[in-house]
Amino acid sequence: MSISPLQKARAAYAPKLPPALAGGANVKVNEGVPTTAVADVEKIRAIFKTTFGSPVLTFEAGGSAAAKAINVGVILSGGQAPGGHNVIAGLYDGLKSLNKTNKLYGFLKGPDGLVKDEYMELTDAIIDAHRNTGGFDMIGSGRTKLETDEQFEAARRHCEALGISALVIIGGDDSNTNACMLAEYFKSHSIPIQVIGCPKTIDGDLKNEWIETSFGFDTACRVYSELIGNIGRDANSAKKYWHFIKLMGRSASHIALECALQTQPNIAIISEEVAEKKMTLGQIVDEIAAVVAARSAAGMNFGVALIPEGLIEFVPEIKVLISELNDLLAANAEKVDAMEKADKVKFALANLTKESAAVFATLPAGIQMQLCNDRDPHGNVQVSLIETEKMLAEMVATKLKAMKAEGKFNGKFSTQVHFFGYEGRCAAPSNYDADYCYSLGYNAAALIGAGRTGYMSSVRNTTKPASEWIAGGIPITMMMNIERRHGHDKPVIRKALVELDGKPFAFFASKRGEWAKETAYVYPGPIQYFGPSEVCDLVTKTLMLEQSK
Amino acid sequence: MSISPLQKARAAYAPKLPPALAGGANVKVNEGVPTTAVADVEKIRAIFKTTFGSPVLTFEAGGSAAAKAINVGVILSGGQAPGGHNVIAGLYDGLKSLNKTNKLYGFLKGPDGLVKDEYMELTDAIIDAHRNTGGFDMIGSGRTKLETDEQFEAARRHCEALGISALVIIGGDDSNTNACMLAEYFKSHSIPIQVIGCPKTIDGDLKNEWIETSFGFDTACRVYSELIGNIGRDANSAKKYWHFIKLMGRSASHIALECALQTQPNIAIISEEVAEKKMTLGQIVDEIAAVVAARSAAGMNFGVALIPEGLIEFVPEIKVLISELNDLLAANAEKVDAMEKADKVKFALANLTKESAAVFATLPAGIQMQLCNDRDPHGNVQVSLIETEKMLAEMVATKLKAMKAEGKFNGKFSTQVHFFGYEGRCAAPSNYDADYCYSLGYNAAALIGAGRTGYMSSVRNTTKPASEWIAGGIPITMMMNIERRHGHDKPVIRKALVELDGKPFAFFASKRGEWAKETAYVYPGPIQYFGPSEVCDLVTKTLMLEQSK
Repeated sequence: MSISPLQKARAAYAPKLPPALAGGANVKVNEGVPTTAVADVEKIRAIFKTTFGSPVLTFEAGGSAAAKAINVGVILSGGQAPGGHNVIAGLYDGLKSLNKTNKLYGFLKGPDGLVKDEYMELTDAIIDAHRNTGGFDMIGSGRTKLETDEQFEAARRHCEALGISALVIIGGDDSNTNACMLAEYFKSHSIPIQVIGCPKTIDGDLKNEWIETSFGFDTACRVYSELIGNIGRDANSAKKYWHFIKLMGRSASHIALECALQTQPNIAIISEEVAEKKMTLGQIVDEIAAVVAARSAAGMNFGVALIPEGLIEFVPEIKVLISELNDLLAANAEKVDAMEKADKVKFALANLTKESAAVFATLPAGIQMQLCNDRDPHGNVQVSLIETEKMLAEMVATKLKAMKAEGKFNGKFSTQVHFFGYEGRCAAPSNYDADYCYSLGYNAAALIGAGRTGYMSSVRNTTKPASEWIAGGIPITMMMNIERRHGHDKPVIRKALVELDGKPFAFFASKRGEWAKETAYVYPGPIQYFGPSEVCDLVTKTLMLEQSK
Repeated sequence: MSISPLQKARAAYAPKLPPALAGGANVKVNEGVPTTAVADVEKIRAIFKTTFGSPVLTFEAGGSAAAKAINVGVILSGGQAPGGHNVIAGLYDGLKSLNKTNKLYGFLKGPDGLVKDEYMELTDAIIDAHRNTGGFDMIGSGRTKLETDEQFEAARRHCEALGISALVIIGGDDSNTNACMLAEYFKSHSIPIQVIGCPKTIDGDLKNEWIETSFGFDTACRVYSELIGNIGRDANSAKKYWHFIKLMGRSASHIALECALQTQPNIAIISEEVAEKKMTLGQIVDEIAAVVAARSAAGMNFGVALIPEGLIEFVPEIKVLISELNDLLAANAEKVDAMEKADKVKFALANLTKESAAVFATLPAGIQMQLCNDRDPHGNVQVSLIETEKMLAEMVATKLKAMKAEGKFNGKFSTQVHFFGYEGRCAAPSNYDADYCYSLGYNAAALIGAGRTGYMSSVRNTTKPASEWIAGGIPITMMMNIERRHGHDKPVIRKALVELDGKPFAFFASKRGEWAKETAYVYPGPIQYFGPSEVCDLVTKTLMLEQSK
């Protein structure tokens, strides 16, 4: 296998650890008071009978627990995020620090591997080949949800067969919720298998008072910001294009906000604000067109606009339209399927409610066609396929044409569109993510050593040097509330959306007027792994602002 | 103005220079024998009466030319390429080394600035703020071609008004051709203004025996390869997508080839090979589908395919189709303009020659619509708007469906498409480009100091450390031949396409079978500016192979 010069050099990087873990994963455990849940306390307590109410844990160096040999399993769950391999490497090293004969098994292709008993034993050679690398290819990942008793029983059988007494599940909010369900299942059935979660997602929406950030968010945002910066510089050099850049992140707009803070684009739309203000698509288009026209009047027929991937589902009127379309097309499936593509659009226009028909009529023809024709196996509109960046560019062009006719715009408007997502999910982790992930994994070993279950690995105070990082564990139940999912009440970890009264958004909101008018682009450049600390050891602007006094 | 931590740290980088220039731009000049042209010698000689036949120059340190104060003008011409600012910084420092009172003027927004007399004097502060940065925003660029006597006369007037006795034109093959035309005009009219060219283009197609590479190619390819590597790692982690990645570069496929050499994708199409083998679009689709099917049979329903932007114009049958479409739609403009979109497609199908109609019929419906509807102001089909990556993904899906029906394919085929271009053109230059560009600019000052005109700045032997780089000048006329352009014979610098018998392609061709079958991805990661030399001081694989014995 060929590896690049950078990968070779980077393999030697030794990630930093919190002081509590510097002497190994055998730690002194400080217990806080019993915890509850963020909401719906009694319901959560009823579901998590044996795991509910555990205390927050904080670690100190120098534990003295007996360290009998154990076998542990690890699972990568859901979408890729930079640093997953380092979580596993930290876990491996932490387990070995507890007892050299401890074994770590990786279940393959996500939770499926646990259910289907597909695994590999992780060795020094495998771990060393993956230190500080991106990707989840060491053991693969998958999107199967661990939810049913059958799955839990299969998990028990396969763990028992391998002598596994602890599982570490690396995943997002849903995966950690399910990790906690599994912990509860095991504990309530007196099955001696611990379950520990680790917070992963580039989307940055798994965070709260105790979990500062999910891993991968830092690296992914830096890759996107590198590209946005390069494009901004191009826009400012060629002076002839508006670049509409869509950024991955289906529900929350943390990525768009962080990238905006790093690069200072002319426009960045934040879905949470759109929802809060109940903005229409027309209003969004008008606002963008107004910025374009103002810059053009100042001689600048170019710009950069950031669009969060999930935007369209946050626009109230579009939400209603899509739901009506789903019902309409499903109710008339046979008739509609027999129609020509263009006739489906006419059918929709004629049969939607007046309000939704009016919204539908404002959409570009290509999007109308797509909404009526590209449906998933359940007959639903495939929102994720909608090229929002193209749609907005087209609608803004139409608006500007109208403004031109009214004498309110006298410039040029040419666009380029981009979508960044896959470019960042498997980047090699930044120093921040390399350190944070390794610490999360090592810390998971400490939680296992301390005999805990239903906990999420927690490393805090990460805006400070690693020598001040705080390691410990957070009961997953305390992050939960009850939400309606697919028609059922479910206990879930509350998703962290962008808070409009939080400091990152407030800072952005205080600056965006200036960034719209001026060309204030910042060019972050590519992630650096060597060289001066002020270049290599960065923390996201989001976290810096959140933690600022 | 905010600048990023990396930009701050990078500003301090001191680019390396060839030994001939280490003591300043006042050099000893070694002249070779008189030169000719790569072809059409007599025609070229007749056009370039006074500049033709100049010798190749090689510089040594320690010249002794008198250094009276001069004013120089510089122009950025055409598309952005990483390192343009360093050419200007090198030129500035080189001029100051000749005489501290020398002045450098930047003409704004490309050749237009020279014609319209828009300029700024470049100062220490301006130059220092742009050292080692990407973009052309210091003075802007533009695509106006300097070709007419009126333009040349305007250039003369504006240079004379500023006391400018030398112009440096930083551009691609066409801009350098025009620089030489201007040099000839000045010299033949006894106007004492020298003209020097510098080889710029990310496309990598301005190179020959004397010009090893154009600047920007290294950096742009590294940015694209970073992203391709990240996407390859994602493909290999998620194991569910084929990624079709289009790469900028309208005519030559150097970028696609270099990125393939850096990242080892499963498929990389090289336009020059398609043209040479007279491949049909159907054959290209069949070849891709065969690789997809073979990987699928081995359990791998994922992959990475690189597509050069200019591909479609290299497929002989598509070339014919587009030319017929242009004629057909132009001849029936009135009638066609009045038709509904879908009817235009039917009209084309009915009226193209049998061969072209058959080719047209194989294209996806969306592409047919686009070809008939999106035409430029001259009524021509807009080839650059065709989303080749999407078109191929769609055609391969159709082919695989047919293979499935025949029992020849039994896997899944889901695709993601990408287009990388603007992401790389304005990246901060790699060490290679930072050094190479600074040297090219400094060397241009040496050519000016040596009183030459009609030369291209040349720095060679760049696969070796800078201490072995060779500085000098190449008469632009010696790179020229006559080509037919818009119905006229024109002297032009011969474009360097990928040579199918050259070492870079030969190496790729010897490996691609293995890369198609296996998952041999390499992950180059982001450009590093600090740290070990083997990570920071790289040379493109293309150049290494070309220069290898």
